[in-house]
Amino acid sequence: MPRNAAIVGGGHADWGHREATWKDLAQEAGKATFDDVDGLTPDDVEGLFVGAVQPERFAFQSHVAPLAAELLGIDVTKMISRTELACASGQAALRYAWLAIAAGQLDVALVLGVEKMNLGDEYMAETQASMTNVLDREFDGVNGLNAPSFFSMFAQRHMHEYGTTHEQLARVSVKNKNHAANNPYAQFQTEVDVDDVLDSYPVAPPLCLLDCSGITDGAAGLLLVSEEKARELTDTAAYVTGSGQSCMAGNSINNLPSFSGWPQATQAAEEAYDQAGIDDPVDELDVAEIHDCFSISEIIEYEDLGWVEKGEGGQFAEDGRGELDGDIAVNPRGGLLGCGHPLGATGVSQALEIYKQFTGEVESARQVPDSPETGLIHNLSGSGSVHSVMTLARDPQ
Amino acid sequence: MPRNAAIVGGGHADWGHREATWKDLAQEAGKATFDDVDGLTPDDVEGLFVGAVQPERFAFQSHVAPLAAELLGIDVTKMISRTELACASGQAALRYAWLAIAAGQLDVALVLGVEKMNLGDEYMAETQASMTNVLDREFDGVNGLNAPSFFSMFAQRHMHEYGTTHEQLARVSVKNKNHAANNPYAQFQTEVDVDDVLDSYPVAPPLCLLDCSGITDGAAGLLLVSEEKARELTDTAAYVTGSGQSCMAGNSINNLPSFSGWPQATQAAEEAYDQAGIDDPVDELDVAEIHDCFSISEIIEYEDLGWVEKGEGGQFAEDGRGELDGDIAVNPRGGLLGCGHPLGATGVSQALEIYKQFTGEVESARQVPDSPETGLIHNLSGSGSVHSVMTLARDPQ
Repeated sequence: MPRNAAIVGGGHADWGHREATWKDLAQEAGKATFDDVDGLTPDDVEGLFVGAVQPERFAFQSHVAPLAAELLGIDVTKMISRTELACASGQAALRYAWLAIAAGQLDVALVLGVEKMNLGDEYMAETQASMTNVLDREFDGVNGLNAPSFFSMFAQRHMHEYGTTHEQLARVSVKNKNHAANNPYAQFQTEVDVDDVLDSYPVAPPLCLLDCSGITDGAAGLLLVSEEKARELTDTAAYVTGSGQSCMAGNSINNLPSFSGWPQATQAAEEAYDQAGIDDPVDELDVAEIHDCFSISEIIEYEDLGWVEKGEGGQFAEDGRGELDGDIAVNPRGGLLGCGHPLGATGVSQALEIYKQFTGEVESARQVPDSPETGLIHNLSGSGSVHSVMTLARDPQ
Repeated sequence: MPRNAAIVGGGHADWGHREATWKDLAQEAGKATFDDVDGLTPDDVEGLFVGAVQPERFAFQSHVAPLAAELLGIDVTKMISRTELACASGQAALRYAWLAIAAGQLDVALVLGVEKMNLGDEYMAETQASMTNVLDREFDGVNGLNAPSFFSMFAQRHMHEYGTTHEQLARVSVKNKNHAANNPYAQFQTEVDVDDVLDSYPVAPPLCLLDCSGITDGAAGLLLVSEEKARELTDTAAYVTGSGQSCMAGNSINNLPSFSGWPQATQAAEEAYDQAGIDDPVDELDVAEIHDCFSISEIIEYEDLGWVEKGEGGQFAEDGRGELDGDIAVNPRGGLLGCGHPLGATGVSQALEIYKQFTGEVESARQVPDSPETGLIHNLSGSGSVHSVMTLARDPQ
């Protein structure tokens, strides 16, 4: 890339079932972001990149980027808009901020992910109906497909093809929820064990309640700046080193290439690894925040991000290779299973976690040991039809 | 910019009140785009950048970028998402495609703007209610503000401060609608005169029906490629030479800096001019597609894009300086007043028009004379709180 860009800080709103509007959430995360970064104020921001999926449905509001600018007292002078890629919207916003800095258009960008999803119990049907429109609503949504039933098919097929067990899936939930128990902004902060997962309410077999992420109100912000600016501000930044996205054959589940894997994840990861100069991801990545919307997702991602052979994801979990002291510390933040999943905010929060792991600022119980220096974020979106990957490192390339 | 990027072709769906879905519109414009460009097929596309504002409300569909990829048979390998900036969404998508090419991430991008707005007469109230959410819905939308009443306040204030007349406003409508009469994809293809405008149904005084753009179903696509690729494909391309966006103090009308002008337009234009090396826009720009959602908008833009002194926009129209053979040919496509305004598609269509004017491929009755070589596109969005400008030229810088 022509110019390097780096994360130099950021912050969160509290995540969960909040008595707060979209605007409240944006404001909380924005304030936390500026509070976190010495040397940058709203006056320094030249570009604003908002990730949000459904403010039109959940908040009856569009043109949300200028709304956020207003709440945070930012006069944007160079670039502004909001990006939507369903569950990967936050990462997509980060990617565009990175491009803007790389291309020399600006030096200081605020990336803000916000989603208000809980509208009150009386509107839960509205939220659930709206969630079907990240699928192909005309073909899949109206026929009753939603996220749990969709991912249950992947779980069933993966078990059938590779002998993966629910206990192995549950290991993912236990790991991530126990990380979240040490994360003060997470939606779910209660420790669980494998039996808790297996005995929890069956949602879409084999997936039980604790195999599923949440319906979450949340927001996260981060400041991404040019290398020159980063060096002025701090000794420890998280530089973007690679990016990949892949979409094969669209969004309807009729056209998906597989029901037990995501070749899109492999393609996206290989592009990012190539840009970052990563030959052996298990050896070279210290920490990763990957898209565990359901426990099965993380199992498949171990495989399709190129960390183990196809079918060995369950064993990777069982062997604890994704624990804080494992081969790659996976989802120390708590993942979507622990933090919840406010759609547009998740990718931003993941990237911020990588930065905070580099700086050693997270709670000690979920700090990845031995000063991590390289990281990865991954999101899938819609029917898993699109996979998005970015790599980060303490040192620019 | 590190690498130049250029438009090498594109196409439209027919615009208007269509018996067609969001998907139909995307497919029509996508097909027209690939039909237009010899040497590029869907297999060549590495990145897909969709501009769309309200598919969540108008089509009950999110994650629309992969949906469009599916319909067009594109396997995206590098970058994909959808961008929303209300009425400037199409331009915002183009801007990100440009950054991706500039930063060296890809060589061939499809930029696709799509909006389905007419849901059938029985749902017109839904469409109208949804349109209020590009304003600040909680403060302005719920109090009855909508686009016509909002822009009527600007018209009244501009008339009060500068003596602008409705006849001058009408000149803008006449010019643009008569251009559209020679544009086969335009929603409104009937020639009008000043009396027709003044005598049309009063919508929000002084604005009458023919001072207003339409509620439009439409889509437009274009292919943006790296300079190296452009030189392989064609001798006549439209290179992006500059970009500027500005948002001052957010979106609620309580915080707007003015009700007779847009300092944001001035800031955005100055940034773009600076990047493009344009010192005297009236002298150096041959053609411009600017945001005439209402006739008053174009009058104010003459001023705030830096073409005439503040208050002289009405005279600029009266003197015919924006006609095809004027100082700058403004909205030869027909503008929003003539083509209609399918929100996410407008910016893409504007940029495509500049390209087609460069190549001389438009209908002869609206061709800008003397082989235009420099152009500008401009959009405002929401409450006019954000202004977006890009400059284009036949030769890269």
